[in-house]
Amino acid sequence: MNNLEFFRLKTREEVVALYPRFAPVGEEQIELSAALGRVLAVSIAAPEDVPAFLRASMDGYAVAAKDTFGASVGTPQYLEIKGEVPMGAAPARSVSPGETLRVPTGAMLPPGADAVVMVEYTAEHEGGTLEVRRPVAPGENVLHPGEDVARGEALFLAGSLLRPQEIGLLAALGCTRLTVYRKPRVAILSSGDEIIPLKQQPAPGQVRDSNAYLALAQVAQWGGVPQLRGIIPDDYAALQAALAAAAADADLILISGGSSVGARDLTLSAIRDLPGAALLVHGVAIRPGKPTILASLGAAAPKPLLGLPGHPASAAVVMEVLGRPLLARLSGRETGAAWGRTMTAALSRNLAGASGREDYVRVRLRPEGETLWADPVLGPSGLLSPLVKSDGLVMIPLGLEGLCKGEAVTVRLFGGS
Amino acid sequence: MNNLEFFRLKTREEVVALYPRFAPVGEEQIELSAALGRVLAVSIAAPEDVPAFLRASMDGYAVAAKDTFGASVGTPQYLEIKGEVPMGAAPARSVSPGETLRVPTGAMLPPGADAVVMVEYTAEHEGGTLEVRRPVAPGENVLHPGEDVARGEALFLAGSLLRPQEIGLLAALGCTRLTVYRKPRVAILSSGDEIIPLKQQPAPGQVRDSNAYLALAQVAQWGGVPQLRGIIPDDYAALQAALAAAAADADLILISGGSSVGARDLTLSAIRDLPGAALLVHGVAIRPGKPTILASLGAAAPKPLLGLPGHPASAAVVMEVLGRPLLARLSGRETGAAWGRTMTAALSRNLAGASGREDYVRVRLRPEGETLWADPVLGPSGLLSPLVKSDGLVMIPLGLEGLCKGEAVTVRLFGGS
Repeated sequence: MNNLEFFRLKTREEVVALYPRFAPVGEEQIELSAALGRVLAVSIAAPEDVPAFLRASMDGYAVAAKDTFGASVGTPQYLEIKGEVPMGAAPARSVSPGETLRVPTGAMLPPGADAVVMVEYTAEHEGGTLEVRRPVAPGENVLHPGEDVARGEALFLAGSLLRPQEIGLLAALGCTRLTVYRKPRVAILSSGDEIIPLKQQPAPGQVRDSNAYLALAQVAQWGGVPQLRGIIPDDYAALQAALAAAAADADLILISGGSSVGARDLTLSAIRDLPGAALLVHGVAIRPGKPTILASLGAAAPKPLLGLPGHPASAAVVMEVLGRPLLARLSGRETGAAWGRTMTAALSRNLAGASGREDYVRVRLRPEGETLWADPVLGPSGLLSPLVKSDGLVMIPLGLEGLCKGEAVTVRLFGGS
Repeated sequence: MNNLEFFRLKTREEVVALYPRFAPVGEEQIELSAALGRVLAVSIAAPEDVPAFLRASMDGYAVAAKDTFGASVGTPQYLEIKGEVPMGAAPARSVSPGETLRVPTGAMLPPGADAVVMVEYTAEHEGGTLEVRRPVAPGENVLHPGEDVARGEALFLAGSLLRPQEIGLLAALGCTRLTVYRKPRVAILSSGDEIIPLKQQPAPGQVRDSNAYLALAQVAQWGGVPQLRGIIPDDYAALQAALAAAAADADLILISGGSSVGARDLTLSAIRDLPGAALLVHGVAIRPGKPTILASLGAAAPKPLLGLPGHPASAAVVMEVLGRPLLARLSGRETGAAWGRTMTAALSRNLAGASGREDYVRVRLRPEGETLWADPVLGPSGLLSPLVKSDGLVMIPLGLEGLCKGEAVTVRLFGGS
């Protein structure tokens, strides 16, 4: 147990710089109604104008704006009402000088009209005469064809995440089927002789497989499809078989390699000896999370394997800091989209950094008057409850002695994008 | 068309204060692996201790701390190595004074030991003697039974949202089935004679049903189950039939009532005349979104109906500001959980408010050096593209003339919780 392998630690940036070697997953066609949170695999240009026609944006009267010039309460202009534009159909007639048609919001303007006078600034008189008490400018209270989106306009680039507003705009354009990246399939393997299934009552020395469930939920939150592969015994052949099976049909393999050095060493050998496998990273200069592994499995279409530390808080941080950008890469997301939301807060106490490592400290956000405080939630990384009390992470950069009380810090929030 | 009903505008707070009359939806049992984003319907106390036993949090040697007192590089203490604790099992023997057992991270400490000396501060000598070069305090490098969670401890209250870390902790406790609130079923009805299905090519005056898709994605993002009920013709009987059917099996009814006053009036009558219906709100003092309707359908177990404005940006804002808290109420979420994430930014230009209404302005976030700017994204509320360019909303409070350039503002971010 004293044969601790010398860890050649890589920085977080060095690890993330390795990700482009892994290709995004393939594409699939989906319905627009299922597109929330999906990532476009092709860029989209607008196939048509939105709106497709000159449209009233207020209830009122379609007019030629010049017919209203000079109108006021004292000296109104008078127009002849020639009927009404129906909703959902072309106007039956056009508007000539001195004429107007009633027009509801959303209806098409008749030829000859270039503006809408709002109902509030008019009065209808007997005999079909409209009194206009305020002038309108050409284009007032209307939406022009292509004003929202012009035909041919580049709308969304491949790699864009689809939010409700993108989905609404695609609906307006009639894009009912989309080409998106598949959701990456993520195999989650647990190993370690002390790990037992959730339904089992732990005997002395045993613990339940909580890390797999934490990772499962993180993967789901970040747009992957988690697959629990169960608990693999601390056995070289069993580990190799399980890894090979996972690499055959998953896009990313996560393995929680047991918390002891012995279990980790075994996992490492099993990975390294797989045909076509390359160990890329063994140890990362972050705290917690030093004993992290990144490997490439398979020669033709290499798939990433991320070996997670055994302590739950370490595993959670590694997933946030390294797993999430990896999943983003596989998902086809644009670079830079990998980090979650951040927030600026004031640190509520001094924090010492970890010499030679990026230090990730759990914090809870606490608003107090005008100030948003980030309260460090301390505790050993073997515990889950400090994570439950936290809203996000604060990073103390490499080479910094620490952060001071009151300092403005960036909090990387837990959660989806 | 001039018979504009006088709107007795309610403030946003007045509208939200009506929500407690609608009961949260019923409960269901789910598997822990499907619990991400769900809301607990019952409070949970820890059924057992985590950890269940005194556990090593480092690789090293299990010792009685007092056997290491005074140890240093110059004057080490010597202990007799009596074997090793296996992973996942109880130690075969205890530790007596002057003795130690090798212990891997995560393993159980033997009786008689109360700390772990890290490998780094030891050396093993031939004949099974351990040289200890640094003292440990009692409890050092170990996790105590119940240190993460103590048996009987109140863990999560009903109404809590389940994130990955909560799921991890519940896994550690063996909670594999959970009682959560059902996801509210949200019926989405579109009306308006100008509205056509997405797959149809619009004739002059027609537009596609984009608002329904925008609402669908928002509902899904906030934890509801959207059900598209299609486009209802502007016909009193058809509207009533569709509303009654939706009220029979959905928990919340959204209706996009057409953009014209005529269509809105028709929708309003159809709602009002339904048996057991009560119109609670007709007009809200927000901009955009004034022509919003809130009604209660059915007498025994009243269900909320939210009537959305026809302009897409107005509908989106009303969903954010009024729909989301309503969905949160039905989902069983704690009060205050209804608002999404917020961020503080500096406003990049002056903004005038809407007299007598809360004003919601779309903004795009733009980091520049140390400053995060909120750039207002202006444009008519009939357009979708300004929403696509935006990251969230800034609210100009009721009664405020406006906000000034450079002022710190709270940006309510679009997205999930």
